[in-house]
Amino acid sequence: MAKSSSILFDDALIVTMDPRRRVIERGSILVEGDRIAEIRGPAGGRPEMAEQRISAKGMAVIPGLVDTHVHLAQSLLRGCADDLSLVEWLRQRVWPIQGVFTEEDGRVSAELSMLEMIRSGTTSFVGVDVVSRYGFDGIAKSVVKAGMRGALAKSIMDSPGYGRKGAIMPAGLVEEKEACISETKSMVKKWNGIRGGLVKAWLAPRSLGGCSRELYEEVADLAEKQKTRVTMHLAEVKEDVRYAKQNFGMTPFEFIEKVGLAGPGSLFAHMVWLTDNDIRSVAKTKANVAHCPSSNLKLASGFPRVPELLEAGANVGLGCDGAPCNNSYDMIREMKIAAVIQKGRLLDPLTMPATTVLEMATVRGAKAMGMESEIGSIEAGKKADLVFIDMKKPHLTPFRNVVSNIVYSAVGGDVDSVMVDGRLLLQHGRALTLDEERIVGEAQQRQVELISRSGVRA
Amino acid sequence: MAKSSSILFDDALIVTMDPRRRVIERGSILVEGDRIAEIRGPAGGRPEMAEQRISAKGMAVIPGLVDTHVHLAQSLLRGCADDLSLVEWLRQRVWPIQGVFTEEDGRVSAELSMLEMIRSGTTSFVGVDVVSRYGFDGIAKSVVKAGMRGALAKSIMDSPGYGRKGAIMPAGLVEEKEACISETKSMVKKWNGIRGGLVKAWLAPRSLGGCSRELYEEVADLAEKQKTRVTMHLAEVKEDVRYAKQNFGMTPFEFIEKVGLAGPGSLFAHMVWLTDNDIRSVAKTKANVAHCPSSNLKLASGFPRVPELLEAGANVGLGCDGAPCNNSYDMIREMKIAAVIQKGRLLDPLTMPATTVLEMATVRGAKAMGMESEIGSIEAGKKADLVFIDMKKPHLTPFRNVVSNIVYSAVGGDVDSVMVDGRLLLQHGRALTLDEERIVGEAQQRQVELISRSGVRA
Repeated sequence: MAKSSSILFDDALIVTMDPRRRVIERGSILVEGDRIAEIRGPAGGRPEMAEQRISAKGMAVIPGLVDTHVHLAQSLLRGCADDLSLVEWLRQRVWPIQGVFTEEDGRVSAELSMLEMIRSGTTSFVGVDVVSRYGFDGIAKSVVKAGMRGALAKSIMDSPGYGRKGAIMPAGLVEEKEACISETKSMVKKWNGIRGGLVKAWLAPRSLGGCSRELYEEVADLAEKQKTRVTMHLAEVKEDVRYAKQNFGMTPFEFIEKVGLAGPGSLFAHMVWLTDNDIRSVAKTKANVAHCPSSNLKLASGFPRVPELLEAGANVGLGCDGAPCNNSYDMIREMKIAAVIQKGRLLDPLTMPATTVLEMATVRGAKAMGMESEIGSIEAGKKADLVFIDMKKPHLTPFRNVVSNIVYSAVGGDVDSVMVDGRLLLQHGRALTLDEERIVGEAQQRQVELISRSGVRA
Repeated sequence: MAKSSSILFDDALIVTMDPRRRVIERGSILVEGDRIAEIRGPAGGRPEMAEQRISAKGMAVIPGLVDTHVHLAQSLLRGCADDLSLVEWLRQRVWPIQGVFTEEDGRVSAELSMLEMIRSGTTSFVGVDVVSRYGFDGIAKSVVKAGMRGALAKSIMDSPGYGRKGAIMPAGLVEEKEACISETKSMVKKWNGIRGGLVKAWLAPRSLGGCSRELYEEVADLAEKQKTRVTMHLAEVKEDVRYAKQNFGMTPFEFIEKVGLAGPGSLFAHMVWLTDNDIRSVAKTKANVAHCPSSNLKLASGFPRVPELLEAGANVGLGCDGAPCNNSYDMIREMKIAAVIQKGRLLDPLTMPATTVLEMATVRGAKAMGMESEIGSIEAGKKADLVFIDMKKPHLTPFRNVVSNIVYSAVGGDVDSVMVDGRLLLQHGRALTLDEERIVGEAQQRQVELISRSGVRA
């Protein structure tokens, strides 16, 4: 998009998430090119120079939501793996079905996931299942087409010994260390930072038992050399702790710290089973956490100690994880679940107030992606990633407290329009970059075929 | 509606909740007057006698949802009482604002609540805040206007000593025992069973400390004589247990059993703090439970032991409670929360499967209302309370497992049409019995005025 193009949104209720300005009533936002040029309150008068003027009357405008942990390859598995124990979930459903994915299945799954994310106000994400068989290239191309801001994490794994959730990974997903590193290097070189930084390529050592100790050390080294970031599933289930104790004589996070992966450039998903000492170390090392409440509950992994992490000073973002374990890619719904489960767990209604949860879905998510200077709040100079929520609905009425209504009452379906990097991806409920009718039809058909091809009884 | 009118819905994916038929693909439902006359599968041919034929292609049809515990007078308080401790929540927000309600505020609040319920697929409810100052008569008239199936529970209270959630009830809500009983008798006589049974009048002793022992016994007696039912907040917070122990030397449920209120005609809301023995007694006495997960978590009351209640053989329905403690009247969202929190609490992904949760929102809710022979499932001969869900949306795609997609992926906003008692209340997203634009506008204005009048700083 040319830098000269400009759009003025006016009459908006702006939830800036900028602590200095917070909420602006009847404000206007001037977007020039890919960035927010100016924000004014009602008394500020309207900038007159915009090429296009769009009324945001009746809308709340929030920063684009950041999903810090999402599996793009799993939306085709929606409704195929529910109410199952973890080993059954992986062995009997997820792996066999993903095992027969074609490139086209991977493409449709990524498109369907992004369609749902855009429709529910997610503008940036960390995609964590881009294993080579679905094609890192293909998915990266889909992200470019969708117009989202995506960090695609290249899955790295050289050991089949201990898989995610205590089960053995299928052999087809494991690579030789050298091949793994060499392919990763070329993907990062090819994709990291393209399209003005819209697409990033990160490194994703799969999980605690999925990599040799040497591989973790090489990943830490590679991330530094290639100036990219690392994300990893960690301490998701009790078995992870047992495995780390048995094999390394320490907790999962202690081990990760030992191999040089705990730091501000790292993002650890789940982190359900942490000791008090782990929590202090997460804060001290400035490592980031991706909290996935629906996934942790639905898979019965446990209740992460998020308020304790925040209290210690750690940075925590939110994530929807995947369709077979959530079963939704709706960050707005995820916010309510994140808030209420901790109040119940700690018997403390004051913990996780609405503003904190909205921070997790915006500014804290941005920080977890290493992009807090570019996205996460509505401020002049930042990227124009904006979400417009239609507040004129019965279930959002009345509203005086807009943050409360967004966190506790709204759902993704209330999102009217979405802008990423100055480009409208959704306008008044119509997806502009992805062909919704085709994707929905194809996804329905492909699930039927996948189930049949895989021989899974679901 | 005249018995002779008939509508045929065809091409529907019918989730009957009738254990013998469960899900029927490409089925048709013939509605005659207020009842389901016939259901056919695709091979059964279409009944030809309907006056009107409506295609339900792409829709899932489920039984009307039953909200077993909802405060109609609280929707005007949405967003005014969040992230607060219980005593502050009641004393600083809920009571002062409700204390300055006019009759008109009560009417608009009831209409807004019902509008949201209809839009999200709730067809029947137990309304529990119909205290006299908002007018039982007025709210009953609103229910008739909205066309919903409502059991309005007349609040009964003669003691200010111990209020809900451990705080003192405001004096204005407490009545003399004799006045209380006499008014209740006349309300039940006037409203119970009118409109072909659409409106019911129940008895609602407010909470454990809100009534004298004699009043509980009179309520039990009155319910039997007037052939109506009883509902009550019970064992919601730890303080309820302490109060019962101190004052009666037993648990809340033991006390309720003692005064003759535990039985198949009673519905107890919350029931968070139960002993193993209480759980057995609930099952043995056939008392019903209204489970309100969002409310229990957001107010930090605790995690109710729902799987244990179900395992013991007790009947449990679902409820949304109120706007200041949920903050939503969306039973579809509530289903997901009910399912996932128990999996997390018990570290057991097999507990509370999707079908069980949908049963709680339909057949079990119907039983909790004493109406299992009339509503709760889609069967020939039952009342025509039907909800049509549009399944052609990205976040519900793909769908092979319709029950999973409804429980884990859908939200109230996916409801396309709603029929109660053979009458369409919502058609393709348009509310037919309530004036949405007026209600939304009035509610917004009235909240502003209520806050100002009450002097609450929210």
